[in-house]
Amino acid sequence: MSPTTALAEVVDVLVRLRARRPLVHCLTNHVVKNFTANALLAVGAAPAMVEHPDEAAEFAAMADALLVNVGTLDAAQIPAIERAVPSARAARKPWVLDPVAVGPLTLRTHFTRSLLAHRPAIIRGNASEIIALSGRTGAGRGVDSGDPTEAALGAASHLAIQTGGAVLVTGAIDHITDGKVVFTCANGHPLMTRVTGVGCAQGAIAAACAVVSANPLQAAIAAATLFAVAGELAAQRAPRPGSYQIALLDALDEIDAGLLRAHARLA
Amino acid sequence: MSPTTALAEVVDVLVRLRARRPLVHCLTNHVVKNFTANALLAVGAAPAMVEHPDEAAEFAAMADALLVNVGTLDAAQIPAIERAVPSARAARKPWVLDPVAVGPLTLRTHFTRSLLAHRPAIIRGNASEIIALSGRTGAGRGVDSGDPTEAALGAASHLAIQTGGAVLVTGAIDHITDGKVVFTCANGHPLMTRVTGVGCAQGAIAAACAVVSANPLQAAIAAATLFAVAGELAAQRAPRPGSYQIALLDALDEIDAGLLRAHARLA
Amino acid sequence: MSPTTALAEVVDVLVRLRARRPLVHCLTNHVVKNFTANALLAVGAAPAMVEHPDEAAEFAAMADALLVNVGTLDAAQIPAIERAVPSARAARKPWVLDPVAVGPLTLRTHFTRSLLAHRPAIIRGNASEIIALSGRTGAGRGVDSGDPTEAALGAASHLAIQTGGAVLVTGAIDHITDGKVVFTCANGHPLMTRVTGVGCAQGAIAAACAVVSANPLQAAIAAATLFAVAGELAAQRAPRPGSYQIALLDALDEIDAGLLRAHARLA
Repeated sequence: MSPTTALAEVVDVLVRLRARRPLVHCLTNHVVKNFTANALLAVGAAPAMVEHPDEAAEFAAMADALLVNVGTLDAAQIPAIERAVPSARAARKPWVLDPVAVGPLTLRTHFTRSLLAHRPAIIRGNASEIIALSGRTGAGRGVDSGDPTEAALGAASHLAIQTGGAVLVTGAIDHITDGKVVFTCANGHPLMTRVTGVGCAQGAIAAACAVVSANPLQAAIAAATLFAVAGELAAQRAPRPGSYQIALLDALDEIDAGLLRAHARLA
Repeated sequence: MSPTTALAEVVDVLVRLRARRPLVHCLTNHVVKNFTANALLAVGAAPAMVEHPDEAAEFAAMADALLVNVGTLDAAQIPAIERAVPSARAARKPWVLDPVAVGPLTLRTHFTRSLLAHRPAIIRGNASEIIALSGRTGAGRGVDSGDPTEAALGAASHLAIQTGGAVLVTGAIDHITDGKVVFTCANGHPLMTRVTGVGCAQGAIAAACAVVSANPLQAAIAAATLFAVAGELAAQRAPRPGSYQIALLDALDEIDAGLLRAHARLA
Repeated sequence: MSPTTALAEVVDVLVRLRARRPLVHCLTNHVVKNFTANALLAVGAAPAMVEHPDEAAEFAAMADALLVNVGTLDAAQIPAIERAVPSARAARKPWVLDPVAVGPLTLRTHFTRSLLAHRPAIIRGNASEIIALSGRTGAGRGVDSGDPTEAALGAASHLAIQTGGAVLVTGAIDHITDGKVVFTCANGHPLMTRVTGVGCAQGAIAAACAVVSANPLQAAIAAATLFAVAGELAAQRAPRPGSYQIALLDALDEIDAGLLRAHARLA
């Protein structure tokens, strides 16, 4: 798959996403639930957060995809995730894993690694999280990466091969791999790091993309690209983080084939 | 009550709401707590989310009204609701029930139906939720309605008579009934479905309206009308969902007697 | 310390905060997590919400400061706070206590008073909360103060001496004391009371300030001043509460030495 072919597929994924409006079940952290739901709505998908373990299992089979984000993992969420993931898998729905702050925090690191056996279609994290998830030692501090994106490529490939899915390593340049090939997306803007939950929202959008793309690698490339191009658009309108948050939602609504073709820097 | 009389009462409810600034105790879902609180503040009411079961019972008697929204019902929230609702009732404070996603999800459907015995002043939901809450079979998918608003009128009337309150069925045209008469509000805008928690915020505002109107039907008509007119105002300023969310809060602050009289389409 | 000296220190605290980018562990209420995180990011700090008791204890020792806000205290959060506070103290990290709605609600009042033995660097609350926390009788209603700021000065001094820290009493004029001297900050804007979580975000920023100022009084003065001046800036751009929320985040990003020196009204 050449970068040109990959970009054509990004456009097709966005078109199919808006036609299908996939319903994404989000088991995500408390800080970003509102922004994640609004990001899904803005890009053309539909969100639902169903959190009681009984209902989470029931709903994971009804929704089109599942997002698991462990940012504020707590005693109530653990059983919900433990029941929703197998339910999604049994119903053949793709699921995305966002290993927020895995590495420095013990409980979530063990828990999140245990989820890998359920083969997420896409894993999305910064370099430190991906390195730590793979069992290696990184330099993360809370939700921030202490490692350059490139340093996580070995870990990312290892995880992709282990799960049979794709891994999206986010950073100034996003790297996406299925363990065989590596694509990069050089779009994005530093303001994306000044708003909470931007990466978390990207994980939810990756789940929506996985519904309309049989290939996890292509879904992950689509999520990375459309999100990062929207992030650049937003920065043209809003130079400060408060208004940037809003402009990013507007840009997710505005993003289309023409904007993707004009601005994407996939390689 | 003619539509003209009803509109005059909508205006009076808004004026009284801003004079009284009712304190609304919200036991609502995790996704929308911030937006709900801001919507109450914007329209001129006051929010409080008190969630520990002991405190929820204590606070429900102090606040002016209670909102129960089961969007992310979990094991911690169930006892809080079970204790707060009787406490509000004992203190003669109105409460509003928002049966989010009742129907496809088993646990919340049984739980929410069990609350009907406590006679909510207002029930607010989309057609599928209202149909399912009444014990009939609807076509909802997560938080979206699969049924036209009119299809829920029988269920809505049944629920209104059962509870002695009013039922607000939201949709492109909102329907409000007390089981005897039906009013419609034709205001609103499609962008209201592109922001998470818009309907949930309306439920909270309905609780505020119920504080300043002894008649649940009038309170529900007021909540429907002022919210939908604000939704139209916001759409004139913000054509995309991110900025629309903010414009809607601004419009809830801006809405007044003149704007209501000029724009309301009550019948 | 003269007001002129205090203002110079406010400027220095802001400069050091942006250079150091302190990581603030927030155990805060569900309504304001997103806004609190965005306020920390906007001003130049970094947020993290880690909520499982095991991880909260672990993380409190890694982060630079801890915020405890009891706005939606629940059964899951109590043990997290009980373990995080001693962990932060053992690691010599400052912590800030925001006693939201202490007074009318029994459980949180007892719980929050029990935390005073762990000597928060800064306590931030409105007059009713500060009076109630000190064991006296106030006039609060939910999150609103029923008492004038000056009425809390005795309670504030008592708490400051008891804890060895500083107390920030917020209101139309903020009062800050260490039990020996009292400073006032006359900046701010009424729109700050029309957006949920504004005060809660100030508490988080106070924790960030406490990282870069060895003196809790100076840290509290800095948090009060930079926040209130930002609140005035925002009101120049956004006259209604929805857009004001966004403008306030932008103003926290924009605030700098020049704006502080031009607008601060410290006495």
